[in-house]
Amino acid sequence: MREAYLDNSATTAVLPEVAKEIYDSMITVYGNPSSLHKKGLEAELELSEARKKLAVCMDAPEECVYFSSGGSEGNNAAIYGLAEKRRRFKKIITSAYEHPSVMQALKRLEKQGFEIMEIAPGADGRISPTEVGRAVDRETAFVSIMMVNNELGTINDIAAIARVIKRKNPDVPLHTDAVQAFGKLKLNCSKLGAQVITVSGHKIHAPKGIGAMYIEKNFRLPPFVVGGGQQTGQRGGTEPVAMAKGLARAAEIAYGKLSENRAKVAELRNRLLDMLKDEPEVTVNSPDEALEYVVNISVTGIRSEIMLHHLESRGVYVSSGSACSKGAKSHVLAAMGFSQQRIDSAIRVSFSPLNTPEDVDLLVEGIKEGRKILMR
Amino acid sequence: MREAYLDNSATTAVLPEVAKEIYDSMITVYGNPSSLHKKGLEAELELSEARKKLAVCMDAPEECVYFSSGGSEGNNAAIYGLAEKRRRFKKIITSAYEHPSVMQALKRLEKQGFEIMEIAPGADGRISPTEVGRAVDRETAFVSIMMVNNELGTINDIAAIARVIKRKNPDVPLHTDAVQAFGKLKLNCSKLGAQVITVSGHKIHAPKGIGAMYIEKNFRLPPFVVGGGQQTGQRGGTEPVAMAKGLARAAEIAYGKLSENRAKVAELRNRLLDMLKDEPEVTVNSPDEALEYVVNISVTGIRSEIMLHHLESRGVYVSSGSACSKGAKSHVLAAMGFSQQRIDSAIRVSFSPLNTPEDVDLLVEGIKEGRKILMR
Repeated sequence: MREAYLDNSATTAVLPEVAKEIYDSMITVYGNPSSLHKKGLEAELELSEARKKLAVCMDAPEECVYFSSGGSEGNNAAIYGLAEKRRRFKKIITSAYEHPSVMQALKRLEKQGFEIMEIAPGADGRISPTEVGRAVDRETAFVSIMMVNNELGTINDIAAIARVIKRKNPDVPLHTDAVQAFGKLKLNCSKLGAQVITVSGHKIHAPKGIGAMYIEKNFRLPPFVVGGGQQTGQRGGTEPVAMAKGLARAAEIAYGKLSENRAKVAELRNRLLDMLKDEPEVTVNSPDEALEYVVNISVTGIRSEIMLHHLESRGVYVSSGSACSKGAKSHVLAAMGFSQQRIDSAIRVSFSPLNTPEDVDLLVEGIKEGRKILMR
Repeated sequence: MREAYLDNSATTAVLPEVAKEIYDSMITVYGNPSSLHKKGLEAELELSEARKKLAVCMDAPEECVYFSSGGSEGNNAAIYGLAEKRRRFKKIITSAYEHPSVMQALKRLEKQGFEIMEIAPGADGRISPTEVGRAVDRETAFVSIMMVNNELGTINDIAAIARVIKRKNPDVPLHTDAVQAFGKLKLNCSKLGAQVITVSGHKIHAPKGIGAMYIEKNFRLPPFVVGGGQQTGQRGGTEPVAMAKGLARAAEIAYGKLSENRAKVAELRNRLLDMLKDEPEVTVNSPDEALEYVVNISVTGIRSEIMLHHLESRGVYVSSGSACSKGAKSHVLAAMGFSQQRIDSAIRVSFSPLNTPEDVDLLVEGIKEGRKILMR
């Protein structure tokens, strides 16, 4: 059966050249980067090469880039680290539609006495820098706002948010979860104004289990994982050399074709929207200005899971909400103030540059057929 | 140049079949285990298969096994989780020669008001269960004692330690860092009496960046990494399916040949000790009863780093202390009460079943030559 994998914001297939690079590194460069002998040095050089490449992709000095086990660890490290660093201040400002790895970490801090202030997205699906600015005060510990929302694709202006924070209280650090932006938008880490930035590999055709953090030079974030002082003490644990190489390679590939990929994916998105625009029961939940990689739609009257499984039976893979919430009702769409019916019937289509126009056609046929046979 | 890699307690070369398994999984099973469609289910099945295999190796029910990013994360998760769970109690009992990922986490807790009580090893390099029993009282939060020491190879009787704790105060949980025991000794997780056990992949020919934890059924350890509720909420973050498969495969291989490997490595160890026994300046620091995989020796009068680099120039790779402390003076040997001279001249030889008698011969030649040309 022909298949169309359109759930790339959940995870992506590892690129063969990335898998090959990881395989080769596993077999040939097996030293521990902390070992003082040649085998250790070889591993250290490979790791440092990978860090350099990744830093170029992120527009960051290499000494500001740290490898982690992925987005959740990175987000936890940012949230807990910032809370510890700024523990004299008890107010934390965030958005109402963050990833669970930010939200759950904040819930934990709430139990410890922090006050969590959630800013709802506007009708355009974005967090208003002005509102963030209004919320920041002398008691604010830090701000955490994601760069691209994982269910809608909406892009927040993190640079503008950083500027208003700086104006209001220059001591307040900013973290941004850039997992869904990485490899799809230029991050400009050095100029962005965020002190901590989280990225992950498996959304950009690297394997699951590797990610990275940008931490502003001289910022000093208390470490999350402590151990043998690896990565200048910022992240303990023997560095996963092969995985780091895979991440750097995947990032190089993504950033090497950034505008080409965006143009390609925009065509896929436009094709989808064109083909759906005369379908009466279809509502597009992603605003026009959202990143082209994510299109959230509702097919009124058909519950998300029903549509998802119908599409699956036709070889088309999409998600209801995000994979991370495993079928729970979307807190993101709820934050948008959508009706329950619209939320209950939402599906997320998410592209990769590997997708083709035929994938879109297969999806649209599936949706149309679904409307016929599933609608009551 | 012929090479002898004898630093296997620092890290090991990934086995080709393990690397192949990871490669194949990366390429073919790319779904997110949390996705509700077929691609997700396929990934979930692979993950669960890996967990089952690993659980068999660890003698644990599969629902007690959680994948992590490695030993440091696992040890941190154990220490911070136990401290949170038992936060009403302020005394933590540990040994004086734990891995930095335990020690550093405990140092942090000390700053937060916990009292850390370190038990020194006896002359046999082991932690006395009786002494642990004496230390446990009504105020004890938890105990953390490693199973096999990473620099000496000494084996602690964790089952006996668990029994004395239970007798003294059955509410006190026990964690053991079993990173250096995993794949070399039967762990018997279910019967051991420890509530939390940490293992890692890269010491047993799996890649760096993957590990696992055993957590006793119904024990409920507060999670370290939180996110989308993966691994029943115990460890958030998209599961690294391919790496988990690699870990399970490496464990199966190690446990499939456990006694064969031990016999083989014991022969290597005995060969080494035999060949060195008439060298007057050589002292063996590892007790006779230590695990055969680690042999710590001192060559009086030659500083560890000097000997290490001399051996390296001859293609022989060993370490001074552990890789994790990157050249810092060994806190393990200090805990043994050894003289400064003995500590300063210590090198750790650590075997894998991949080593050969020729590796030992190359090492001994190197040491002998070193004594001649480096001694002043």
